Amino acid sequence: MTYCLGMLVEDGLVMLADTRTNAGVDNISTYRKLRIVANPPDRLVAIASAGSLSTTQAAMQRLEGGVLNPETGELDTFLTVPSIFAAALAAGRAIRMSRDALSGLQQENVNFDATLLIGGAVGDEPPRLFLVYAAGNVIECGPDTPYLQIGETKYGKPILDRALRHSCPIPEAIKIALISFDSTMRSNLAVGPPLDLLVIRNGQRGGESVRRITDDDEYFRDLARRWSEALAHARAEIPDPTY
Amino acid sequence: MTYCLGMLVEDGLVMLADTRTNAGVDNISTYRKLRIVANPPDRLVAIASAGSLSTTQAAMQRLEGGVLNPETGELDTFLTVPSIFAAALAAGRAIRMSRDALSGLQQENVNFDATLLIGGAVGDEPPRLFLVYAAGNVIECGPDTPYLQIGETKYGKPILDRALRHSCPIPEAIKIALISFDSTMRSNLAVGPPLDLLVIRNGQRGGESVRRITDDDEYFRDLARRWSEALAHARAEIPDPTY
Repeated sequence: MTYCLGMLVEDGLVMLADTRTNAGVDNISTYRKLRIVANPPDRLVAIASAGSLSTTQAAMQRLEGGVLNPETGELDTFLTVPSIFAAALAAGRAIRMSRDALSGLQQENVNFDATLLIGGAVGDEPPRLFLVYAAGNVIECGPDTPYLQIGETKYGKPILDRALRHSCPIPEAIKIALISFDSTMRSNLAVGPPLDLLVIRNGQRGGESVRRITDDDEYFRDLARRWSEALAHARAEIPDPTY
Repeated sequence: MTYCLGMLVEDGLVMLADTRTNAGVDNISTYRKLRIVANPPDRLVAIASAGSLSTTQAAMQRLEGGVLNPETGELDTFLTVPSIFAAALAAGRAIRMSRDALSGLQQENVNFDATLLIGGAVGDEPPRLFLVYAAGNVIECGPDTPYLQIGETKYGKPILDRALRHSCPIPEAIKIALISFDSTMRSNLAVGPPLDLLVIRNGQRGGESVRRITDDDEYFRDLARRWSEALAHARAEIPDPTY
């Protein structure tokens, strides 16, 4: 399993992903799922992936060489596409082609589906965020629900629905993202640290990198402890039911 | 969808279920999922159900007439079984038989699986709680993880993992259950009010009934509001990240 989260707020884009990958509970390892895939001066494209690792890796290889765009007849790569939307469509085609190429193995009863979050900016456009489904279709994140999730999405969703608004400042969004991951990691062992964090601020592009938040990161440990204590306190403050 | 929760704590058993049932998002109605199915002086058996309504209803009909116990050659009903464990096994056989009888319809691409929570007590035994899987096998709730869930389980699980202990007093357990349902109903429209609550206290059997907690129940509304405010306060109290 995996959990990846993208948040698009007024001031920019936040992406957070775990690094645990597993083929059964008896085969767990660490694998980077959030990475910057293109970062020349005119653009920044980042991808987080969930699902079949072989499909994702094959798709990334395919994209480096270029994926045929049936509308223009050209080979799209993350360095040539004119927008993040076009990057998401190209990744969708790559995911679908890679999955279909593997599907000859389907007698093995393995699921080769993979989903992606693609975030970033091309030129002067503000950051955008897309979810790429296994079938290759994409949806864009908008202000009404300013986040997209892939992988193990449910444990960490209530806090997002309660707390995240498009108007949240970026530090607040990062806090909410870390709480969402803390809840998920407590309930599903297949989502685990370290976490990878990427922040892209509107109009301040340059020098972005993926920051690794390890198990013993002081801020994250403090946040998890404070959150747990605050929840316990909040429960204690609610009067007992009369029924 | 549906969400049903059973909690087995030191002082007794708490069961809580929603009442929303749906066949697609365009066909939603209210249906009682938690009910007392046997309540003569010597026993109390309660069932909460999730999944296919037709399988569940067929199984309940079957159980009224008695389900063959292959080990004793007798027809088991909730009024004759010697323990809650035996009740769970009988319900498991009924669920499986009902599902298999419907499976001739499987070209319709409908899922006829159903799962149950069975709780209660027979004679002087303390309350017990079981989960009955669609295949008819059962697991019992124990003190290490003092709860079982069926249906839409994930949104409401983090608060259980954080807060519920076998030593929780019953009012505390009810509070935690209501918070778990509040989180679930915010994130999944297919789980909805009113809620049905059943409490069985150790050594104090008699007069139990399912209490309906409606949308405008004052205690539940107050709990949801306090919880929301406390979470917002807790987030505000956590210092901003430095990354």
